[in-house]
Amino acid sequence: MNKRLKHTVAAVLALGTLVATATAVAQQAPKPEQLIKWRQSAYQVIAWNTGRVKANVDGQYNKEDVIKAANTIAALANAGMGSLYAPGTETGKGWKETAVKPELFTDKKAGEAAAAFNKEANELAKVAVGGDVVAVKAQLGKLQATCKGCHDDFRKKD
Amino acid sequence: MNKRLKHTVAAVLALGTLVATATAVAQQAPKPEQLIKWRQSAYQVIAWNTGRVKANVDGQYNKEDVIKAANTIAALANAGMGSLYAPGTETGKGWKETAVKPELFTDKKAGEAAAAFNKEANELAKVAVGGDVVAVKAQLGKLQATCKGCHDDFRKKD
Repeated sequence: MNKRLKHTVAAVLALGTLVATATAVAQQAPKPEQLIKWRQSAYQVIAWNTGRVKANVDGQYNKEDVIKAANTIAALANAGMGSLYAPGTETGKGWKETAVKPELFTDKKAGEAAAAFNKEANELAKVAVGGDVVAVKAQLGKLQATCKGCHDDFRKKD
Repeated sequence: MNKRLKHTVAAVLALGTLVATATAVAQQAPKPEQLIKWRQSAYQVIAWNTGRVKANVDGQYNKEDVIKAANTIAALANAGMGSLYAPGTETGKGWKETAVKPELFTDKKAGEAAAAFNKEANELAKVAVGGDVVAVKAQLGKLQATCKGCHDDFRKKD
């Protein structure tokens, strides 16, 4: 093989590797619309489970049901939902148009709001194990306050 | 108060209690469309997190990321999603028209499929803590087989 041909072959091989790598990355990175759909879904699952805890403290209390609900909320709080707010997801349609305000991507209060939600969700999972209705109700209130705070600051009104 | 009036008052009070109770139950029980939306959301969250585990075993492995994803899947598997298939949710629209087949509500294989998913999801959460990529990949395969089995039997094709 002459020198020029060698260089050409090497260049083609290098290009092939680049294309393959780019393809792999493209396959792995979910599209913004997918990320928006996932985060909308995650909040629905959180709403389902906070609603379950509320129904228990307001009505017939079932300790096991509250533990399951609180564990699901805590798992989502710890899941790393921040990755669902990747660049490119400031606008767009998941199940529906995102209601996120642009401030969420720039205001450092957003991180604090997420940390507060995380803290109260983990605390609810702990309190649920105790099975004390009054304590669970109080902790649910603290958790819901973090939901409301974040909605007020970073979610457009319907 | 004469006897007849007393009876009338008692009957009206009893009726009032009945109405109040029925109202409270109605307020607590989410509508079928809401239940369908929640279960569609739950499967999206599961898809998000199985996809995360797959991206880790196929690419750069991050043990903590896999643990978070596996814990979220397990929490949902243990959450009691069966309650989202309450009577009245055989048809209807959540985020979109439900794709569930009527057989899910009558075939006892549905319960077995749910139990299999539950078992493999809990096992994945355990294996994730070990951080062994080969073991996690194998366990993810077992989990995904339970997803596919249930989809084949109980979910209409798109």
